[in-house]
Amino acid sequence: MLPIGKTTKQGKRSITANELVYAADALCTNLYHIVYTGLHLDLWGILERLDAGEIVIGDGGFVFGLEKRGYVKAGPWTPEATVEHPEAVRQLHREFLRAGSNVLQTFTFYASEDKLENRGNYVAEKISCQKVNEAACDIAREVANQGDALVAGGVSQTPSYLSCKDKAVVKAAFQKQLDVFMKKNVDFLIAEYFEHVEEAVWAVEVLKESGKPVAATMCIGPEGDMHGVTPGQCAVQLVKAGASIVGVNCHFDPDTCLETVKLMKEGLQAAKLKAHLMSQPLAFHTPDCGKQGFIDLPEFPFGLEPRIVTRWDIQKYARKAYDLGIRYIGGCCGFEPYHIRAIAEELAPERGFLPEASEKHGSWGDSLSMHTKPWVRARARKEYWENLKPASGRPYCPSMSKPDGWGVTKGARELMQQKEATSEQQLKELFQKQKF
Amino acid sequence: MLPIGKTTKQGKRSITANELVYAADALCTNLYHIVYTGLHLDLWGILERLDAGEIVIGDGGFVFGLEKRGYVKAGPWTPEATVEHPEAVRQLHREFLRAGSNVLQTFTFYASEDKLENRGNYVAEKISCQKVNEAACDIAREVANQGDALVAGGVSQTPSYLSCKDKAVVKAAFQKQLDVFMKKNVDFLIAEYFEHVEEAVWAVEVLKESGKPVAATMCIGPEGDMHGVTPGQCAVQLVKAGASIVGVNCHFDPDTCLETVKLMKEGLQAAKLKAHLMSQPLAFHTPDCGKQGFIDLPEFPFGLEPRIVTRWDIQKYARKAYDLGIRYIGGCCGFEPYHIRAIAEELAPERGFLPEASEKHGSWGDSLSMHTKPWVRARARKEYWENLKPASGRPYCPSMSKPDGWGVTKGARELMQQKEATSEQQLKELFQKQKF
Amino acid sequence: MLPIGKTTKQGKRSITANELVYAADALCTNLYHIVYTGLHLDLWGILERLDAGEIVIGDGGFVFGLEKRGYVKAGPWTPEATVEHPEAVRQLHREFLRAGSNVLQTFTFYASEDKLENRGNYVAEKISCQKVNEAACDIAREVANQGDALVAGGVSQTPSYLSCKDKAVVKAAFQKQLDVFMKKNVDFLIAEYFEHVEEAVWAVEVLKESGKPVAATMCIGPEGDMHGVTPGQCAVQLVKAGASIVGVNCHFDPDTCLETVKLMKEGLQAAKLKAHLMSQPLAFHTPDCGKQGFIDLPEFPFGLEPRIVTRWDIQKYARKAYDLGIRYIGGCCGFEPYHIRAIAEELAPERGFLPEASEKHGSWGDSLSMHTKPWVRARARKEYWENLKPASGRPYCPSMSKPDGWGVTKGARELMQQKEATSEQQLKELFQKQKF
Amino acid sequence: MLPIGKTTKQGKRSITANELVYAADALCTNLYHIVYTGLHLDLWGILERLDAGEIVIGDGGFVFGLEKRGYVKAGPWTPEATVEHPEAVRQLHREFLRAGSNVLQTFTFYASEDKLENRGNYVAEKISCQKVNEAACDIAREVANQGDALVAGGVSQTPSYLSCKDKAVVKAAFQKQLDVFMKKNVDFLIAEYFEHVEEAVWAVEVLKESGKPVAATMCIGPEGDMHGVTPGQCAVQLVKAGASIVGVNCHFDPDTCLETVKLMKEGLQAAKLKAHLMSQPLAFHTPDCGKQGFIDLPEFPFGLEPRIVTRWDIQKYARKAYDLGIRYIGGCCGFEPYHIRAIAEELAPERGFLPEASEKHGSWGDSLSMHTKPWVRARARKEYWENLKPASGRPYCPSMSKPDGWGVTKGARELMQQKEATSEQQLKELFQKQKF
Repeated sequence: MLPIGKTTKQGKRSITANELVYAADALCTNLYHIVYTGLHLDLWGILERLDAGEIVIGDGGFVFGLEKRGYVKAGPWTPEATVEHPEAVRQLHREFLRAGSNVLQTFTFYASEDKLENRGNYVAEKISCQKVNEAACDIAREVANQGDALVAGGVSQTPSYLSCKDKAVVKAAFQKQLDVFMKKNVDFLIAEYFEHVEEAVWAVEVLKESGKPVAATMCIGPEGDMHGVTPGQCAVQLVKAGASIVGVNCHFDPDTCLETVKLMKEGLQAAKLKAHLMSQPLAFHTPDCGKQGFIDLPEFPFGLEPRIVTRWDIQKYARKAYDLGIRYIGGCCGFEPYHIRAIAEELAPERGFLPEASEKHGSWGDSLSMHTKPWVRARARKEYWENLKPASGRPYCPSMSKPDGWGVTKGARELMQQKEATSEQQLKELFQKQKF
Repeated sequence: MLPIGKTTKQGKRSITANELVYAADALCTNLYHIVYTGLHLDLWGILERLDAGEIVIGDGGFVFGLEKRGYVKAGPWTPEATVEHPEAVRQLHREFLRAGSNVLQTFTFYASEDKLENRGNYVAEKISCQKVNEAACDIAREVANQGDALVAGGVSQTPSYLSCKDKAVVKAAFQKQLDVFMKKNVDFLIAEYFEHVEEAVWAVEVLKESGKPVAATMCIGPEGDMHGVTPGQCAVQLVKAGASIVGVNCHFDPDTCLETVKLMKEGLQAAKLKAHLMSQPLAFHTPDCGKQGFIDLPEFPFGLEPRIVTRWDIQKYARKAYDLGIRYIGGCCGFEPYHIRAIAEELAPERGFLPEASEKHGSWGDSLSMHTKPWVRARARKEYWENLKPASGRPYCPSMSKPDGWGVTKGARELMQQKEATSEQQLKELFQKQKF
Repeated sequence: MLPIGKTTKQGKRSITANELVYAADALCTNLYHIVYTGLHLDLWGILERLDAGEIVIGDGGFVFGLEKRGYVKAGPWTPEATVEHPEAVRQLHREFLRAGSNVLQTFTFYASEDKLENRGNYVAEKISCQKVNEAACDIAREVANQGDALVAGGVSQTPSYLSCKDKAVVKAAFQKQLDVFMKKNVDFLIAEYFEHVEEAVWAVEVLKESGKPVAATMCIGPEGDMHGVTPGQCAVQLVKAGASIVGVNCHFDPDTCLETVKLMKEGLQAAKLKAHLMSQPLAFHTPDCGKQGFIDLPEFPFGLEPRIVTRWDIQKYARKAYDLGIRYIGGCCGFEPYHIRAIAEELAPERGFLPEASEKHGSWGDSLSMHTKPWVRARARKEYWENLKPASGRPYCPSMSKPDGWGVTKGARELMQQKEATSEQQLKELFQKQKF
Repeated sequence: MLPIGKTTKQGKRSITANELVYAADALCTNLYHIVYTGLHLDLWGILERLDAGEIVIGDGGFVFGLEKRGYVKAGPWTPEATVEHPEAVRQLHREFLRAGSNVLQTFTFYASEDKLENRGNYVAEKISCQKVNEAACDIAREVANQGDALVAGGVSQTPSYLSCKDKAVVKAAFQKQLDVFMKKNVDFLIAEYFEHVEEAVWAVEVLKESGKPVAATMCIGPEGDMHGVTPGQCAVQLVKAGASIVGVNCHFDPDTCLETVKLMKEGLQAAKLKAHLMSQPLAFHTPDCGKQGFIDLPEFPFGLEPRIVTRWDIQKYARKAYDLGIRYIGGCCGFEPYHIRAIAEELAPERGFLPEASEKHGSWGDSLSMHTKPWVRARARKEYWENLKPASGRPYCPSMSKPDGWGVTKGARELMQQKEATSEQQLKELFQKQKF
């Protein structure tokens, strides 16, 4: 056993977490494969569920959740944790599954080749795009198989597009990820987090070739995409390109996202097109966002804590989404497992069951009837939580911020892809443009 | 393999997460034991470190973190996840270790027998107090061995004390947990989360008998314990009872906790007593708390999101704690791995190294130099984050709340322990006492 | 002398303020008339000024200002103070004149006959509509003559219109006030505070008959009037009806009002019509208003204090108004003399002079150089005040409110005019509709 | 008549407000004198009222009120308006009388000779200290005679004291004002707005020589005076020096002032001394003040609007003051007539009558039953206004501020009196010390 272990600063022998965990993970993975070979799982697909009127609960965001847990770097936001720390990715998938998610997205956000090598990122070279995507598929499948969940392979917007590369170049990036998804046989595909419908359409076109069902979401608000295309028009273009499910994800809070999906719905109706609707908003309150969403807010990404939504905010969101006709209801950045559970609990009457994680959660706070302090037991009821206006505990802070409004979009010099890290000189110029 | 798996509502065969995970966990645990038998780890103890002037970084709170992940029930707040979902507890330990924690506390909060059977809790009967405590020790040891960390066995306040049971009864509860800690050979002991110094002293007396070093923290603010004993007097009593390390944990925000520890320090100096100082505050802003801390705030426990502190708040806390002479610096409820990492990053100059998780975090936001959007790259600097006053995004909410002030303390009828669940009639009475 | 005076509760003889003041006022009024008969004042009219490109500064709101001073009743909001307490009305006119107002509006807001007898109001019967209007004209003229100011006779929306009375009935109400204005020879006329452009047009038609210049303002926001007519369409209709000056007053904060005037301007340009522009906003921040303006806000009218704008807010407003091409710039409810002075100070470079009241005010706080405390002297500069984000000192209050949204408009039963006071039963029904 | 009038910029003849007003005022004053010579008013004195248990309602602050009306300069804050604009001072007195004030303080705040010539102030030289004080007495008496009110001559802290002048010099400044008060035969005397009890005692000693009753208030908070003397000790010293009434005024909000008066009361009780209690707080919310009060807040004096208290806040203050045993209840800076009326309305049950100004105000908003809009009529009740948490309409502003903490006090170079205006160089140095 002695090859594992190293000498610490205190002069004592130790062993690293990773070394042991890798050994254990290898064992586990083998175990799962043995088990599943023996099972003949035959789950309903995404479209069969939606066509049957079922509610499909999505999962939450991985990059924000794993950043807080220590496995993702804010800035590049790339998913190399699938290779470097599979146990952490697996655990987060488990938590979402337990919270009620019916879809586990492969953790392949920003896993296109060009992003994995952008601005000094080492992943493309040291690990490789293919390995990151493959590991993501394996982990998602392992966990999905432990419950009633589908695996969705996801692609998202590329630096190549923002740098004005050819359509063919951009499509090739998507194709490379798709090849992995097909090899690993994911259940369906999602093109998500697009600011420009043009690029989203290209993505849908690529994914559609596979024959698998395709969902497409944009990270836009009611004002539409960065080129000024309205939500209604975006939805129409995506459906025409082959998406069976359309909606929004990320960039805006639940209320704003629902407003945008409503505009998409109206656009589809006007065009007499049919598609299922989907929403995966932020779990942050962003009433003060501009057109480009929460990235412009001064708090992004390391000061967003006071904006985190409560489970009760999410129950209201789930109800409104349902009432609007949306049936694929999930979350994005900021959504933690308990937020997903809140969707599942709110819609439990419609679905007829609670998620596993509700064994540790009473509806509308009723587990508080077990609290030691009587005034906390007195909060064990819906009326209390429904009406609470939670204080920030931050009297020296405002309640809204002015977003940065640089008005920079596709094609701007400062958005260009570059392999080398941002230089000191480049940073200096940016610091001068920033107000404080 | 086929005995595992069940039939889902959609009429398809499935397998539960737990069944598989248990199988895998059993394998992993065996693996670890095999490995560690072969290693002769010989880490410095807690007092050797503190005596040598080293900074010891504690871990964060488990009940809040695991509640959000779906494994702990708010209300009872008991740690049966050590038995029911060891993989989730293990992962959280790993994350704290990776973030820089030098101490992993056994997840034995509220794991005294009387708490595990209070107000309808099934754990004492269905699982048993001993099993919960043993599993907690095993998991903490497994993970601690993967890095430079000690295992601390922890006890906390009991319903028996609040129900005015005899000193002997209360002490027996602590002894029962201590027996497990000795059997599992934890590195040192912590008596934490006491509102009454009288009970804390009893706990220290029990733990001290073991011969292991004892730390003691109270969940009090500058006004002192629930019987009006000042922080300075509390510290003196705890040290006289045998604690080598004293301080505060939980119930108040970092600033308030430091104020309290300062009063403890002054009390010890006045009494010419020596002890190491320790602080493990909340990761919530609570300027509006009364004497009993955040439990009285109307947002407790399901609306605290807007109060969550940022990593920058924690860096300021770590620096202030260090300047005050505190060398055991950790966190409590609300502290997530990235908060612990913030302590380790702030004190990296003094310690000479960064934690493992900093591979995914640039100091003061510098990883943002890799962000795609130029205005976010412009935030890659200390000056920006240090001065940010983060907005809540909640213009319809206040910034402070009036705490519930029931003035109920030890001995009050409503605080009494009861095996049966809180009845509808009891709840009704409580609801009427609550304002909304 | 002895007829004046009464017996107080303490058994001592006293004299009322009113009795003496009336005697003194009678003397004063006579004095002014004697003086002015001898002067041949020959001021430029409103249109000559605006046509010449001069900036005309309006005055501020009387009903809110005099309510706080104790002379106007919130609820009816009628101007009987012109008869009951002329000294108070005169003093407020003086202050606005001194602050820089070039127009003194007769205090005839809501002085139509039907309003003076609505819901139990005693004024129509006890004093008479005519006397109130006449006294208003006399006082305004007295003060206007003391400086460079014009007198504008004003009419506003009527309960008759909201109660669906005939056009003839509504027009007769305006005519009755106009008769007084003509007899007293005001300099020009303003139709202000209209929620429905239909009624505003009727008012302009009546006023236009007089041959005097007519200004017309509506209390609408960017969403337009209560019947859904856009600001641009409203402006067009008003100009076509004969208004030479159009704009908005009341109901919204400066920023919102400027947005609305901008839409009016665009509407006029599109219709190739010419008119001068005018704005008289609230001195309250109302970002959270709905279509009907600040009356719907829960703080209206007795909790608006935290919304009061600073003088610096007004300087920014004056500059934006000027840049937008507005040349008649004043205020409405909440505007106190120092707010009007702020307009005059901001536009002093364009106008070439400061108002009289600036003898007691340094530009951008420079009089603070005379303060005793050095840290207050350090605030004697524009940069300081321009950037200040003033705190509310109210940590338990939100920053925005949800407006009441009853959606009740012209013709609704509850808006109907009634002579008798609102009954207990009527109130009870209303209280039940209100949330708290 | 033709000598009055001047030529304006537009080439037309005009007359100034002041010229005419002076003529009218001369007439009025004569009239009052004629009337009052014929009346034998025989009002109870201040001590007779308080000894009999009567509630005495004070008035509100003049410098802030008249600054907004255009007659007082922020910075020097001196009361030359008594000579320059007597009509404005008179009107404000009238409004307070009408609102329920039983005491009209002469507008002699900061009217000591050394203040009238400090830092470039022209008043001492151009008008003279004596004239300002005399005019203040005349105006207050005129108005007081119109109702049930006493005239109180007031002195306040001096620049001489802060500049470390001899006790004799400081006392001479008070004596000079006292000579006028005796000549004009005010009803009693107030030493108010002292930051150092030493100076306040000197003032009381001087005033006491007159034989008139003396009240003394300090502008301190619960932490005591600038030399660290506690409120209890301050009260004891003031009473021993001869004050019959003690309390606080200015610098802090109602709640804080009541806390301070409570400490004074306890100090007197401990010392077995008897005195009447008095409170005249700010009408601004200042929970975030430090020891020196609102002057340190960044919003002072031109950004305090969002902190202005509502009438309902004042009703709560009046009730709490009464319950605490305070019987002389008034206000200071920020108090406008409607705030004083709120005191009189809250205590109407105890006093048996409402003030005159209540003819224009319904108790707890009941005049709103006459409002046109039904949802505003629905606010015609106590429950509504009592529970309202008014929004600021300022989502980009915080709710509390950090006070400037220069820690400069008596004797500091920067506090020294100087006749010449603050120089550019002096200002520059100050600007550098100020954060923004």
